[in-house]
Amino acid sequence: MKIQDWGEDDFIAYLTKEFPFRSPLVGIGDDCALLPHQQLIKTDALVEGIHFIKEQIPPQELGYKLIAVNVSDIASKGGVPKYAFLTIAIPATTESAWLKDVIAGMREACTKWDIQLLGGDTVGSKRDLFLSLTLTGTSPLVKYRHQAQEGDLVCVTGYLGDSYGGLKALQENLIKTEEVQSLIRAHFHPEPSPAEGIWLSGQEGVHAMMDISDGLDIDLNRLIKASGCGAVIELEELPLSTPLLQTCLEHNWNPSELAATGGEDYCLLVTIAKRAYNSLNGLFYEKFGHPLFAIGQITDQKGPVFYHRKGQPIEMHLKHFDHFC
Amino acid sequence: MKIQDWGEDDFIAYLTKEFPFRSPLVGIGDDCALLPHQQLIKTDALVEGIHFIKEQIPPQELGYKLIAVNVSDIASKGGVPKYAFLTIAIPATTESAWLKDVIAGMREACTKWDIQLLGGDTVGSKRDLFLSLTLTGTSPLVKYRHQAQEGDLVCVTGYLGDSYGGLKALQENLIKTEEVQSLIRAHFHPEPSPAEGIWLSGQEGVHAMMDISDGLDIDLNRLIKASGCGAVIELEELPLSTPLLQTCLEHNWNPSELAATGGEDYCLLVTIAKRAYNSLNGLFYEKFGHPLFAIGQITDQKGPVFYHRKGQPIEMHLKHFDHFC
Repeated sequence: MKIQDWGEDDFIAYLTKEFPFRSPLVGIGDDCALLPHQQLIKTDALVEGIHFIKEQIPPQELGYKLIAVNVSDIASKGGVPKYAFLTIAIPATTESAWLKDVIAGMREACTKWDIQLLGGDTVGSKRDLFLSLTLTGTSPLVKYRHQAQEGDLVCVTGYLGDSYGGLKALQENLIKTEEVQSLIRAHFHPEPSPAEGIWLSGQEGVHAMMDISDGLDIDLNRLIKASGCGAVIELEELPLSTPLLQTCLEHNWNPSELAATGGEDYCLLVTIAKRAYNSLNGLFYEKFGHPLFAIGQITDQKGPVFYHRKGQPIEMHLKHFDHFC
Repeated sequence: MKIQDWGEDDFIAYLTKEFPFRSPLVGIGDDCALLPHQQLIKTDALVEGIHFIKEQIPPQELGYKLIAVNVSDIASKGGVPKYAFLTIAIPATTESAWLKDVIAGMREACTKWDIQLLGGDTVGSKRDLFLSLTLTGTSPLVKYRHQAQEGDLVCVTGYLGDSYGGLKALQENLIKTEEVQSLIRAHFHPEPSPAEGIWLSGQEGVHAMMDISDGLDIDLNRLIKASGCGAVIELEELPLSTPLLQTCLEHNWNPSELAATGGEDYCLLVTIAKRAYNSLNGLFYEKFGHPLFAIGQITDQKGPVFYHRKGQPIEMHLKHFDHFC
């Protein structure tokens, strides 16, 4: 059997079995590991030809994104990002000017979130560029993905599908209208918000929390599997940006499908006790200038996420991204 | 300019300048970073086609080695290894059975050093396999590479050149005599010793410490540069194993050159106050069953390492390994 048939989730399940962790630590299976002293650690990689096309992404955006995707994981556990470690494998013919731009992008992100880059490993690569970042953080009160409760509202903290829209626009070589440019920016320049994560993790009514990196459907399925429950999503509640809606209309894309499956949104996925939602949403809006979008509900019906449109069940044929396919 | 012309050390110098660290933390420039709570962090990567040939290294050895090379860095700062994080980028056609063997090797090493693997990132790769490990540790008393003092003896804790001999044997496809097998094992299965590192870091007469991963010459040059001093090495004092000497004789290899330039020895390079050496060496031998090999001396003459043979200066034309060439 090849890894493309084994699949990412089964491979991670195998690793989890092979490397059981000893409480009170938290190991494989959530967005970050939790170490003594409330320390969070996360690693996330960007690989040429898989996560980015070198000719497509501006180098400064690549460096920025490498930091941002890891900040998103720390944010999803209510953490403040602290120290970073870079592993970079570089083909011999890479232009040093290009590399300096990658580093400038990393610096921009490190300055933005007050992160100190303290080490790593610089090695050669035969053909493809490989970037892996380890980021630590601290969180006084961690929220996990296994804490969802029946009846919770499923909420997200930002628009869904913009990054995927940007990727599709690049793949289909669309004319760079203002809307398309906005989507491409969402794809290259994610804006995770540790401040939102820290605030949410401190609220009593917030139960489970994680970030959306592989797409709402995959990530919500992971959340309910970890929590031992189910979920129903109301498709017309998915928050869609005007640039995405506009571009979907023009190019006959299905916005619900983009929002449900598109990866790299890097906003937060939270489940909130129904009784607490109104008050939390009001406070959140006041503090961060946008709502906690309620898009569905946690149920006791285990199994994959259900989708409704106008209250009626609807079958979605979602194509998923698997790293190994 | 391309990265192959820029070179690894200049690239790291650039990173150090771009990411200055704030005391009391220790960042780029030593074997590990030092975080609050005496925590050490290190990342080290193994890249297909650069660090290993997939058809040559048994998968279990690859997994073991990935852990061991990072343990060596933690050991070099007097640390106990604790928690590991794996980033692995896998081509779609990789056999899952092969991958399970890699993981078995990692487990073997984690069990050996009581390390918990707590997370990471599993992603795809277009062509080559990438493995990057982040390892944390704790050290009550860290020794750095910048602490060498004039007059110190330069010592190593193990034979030099065996791993490089093993690599050459594989490259030249030598008949696998008992000696050659022993060298190949040194190449695939390094044996760093955190116990030795911890003990040495606790001794008053031990000044600077690092591990030898890129070869004695490169690493000692880094140590004296960081310490602002010079060094003289007595070539006939370099500790050589019987299998290496035997194989050098048979194949007309230069053993001093192998010992001075061969990477991946993963023993410790320490500088020790002359007055303390005899007593420390005796205690070390008693505890670990082999000596602290004294191979030279720290001088006040800044610049690259000098080599002597029978007390006379000798010019060495050493070919170095650079990751980007």
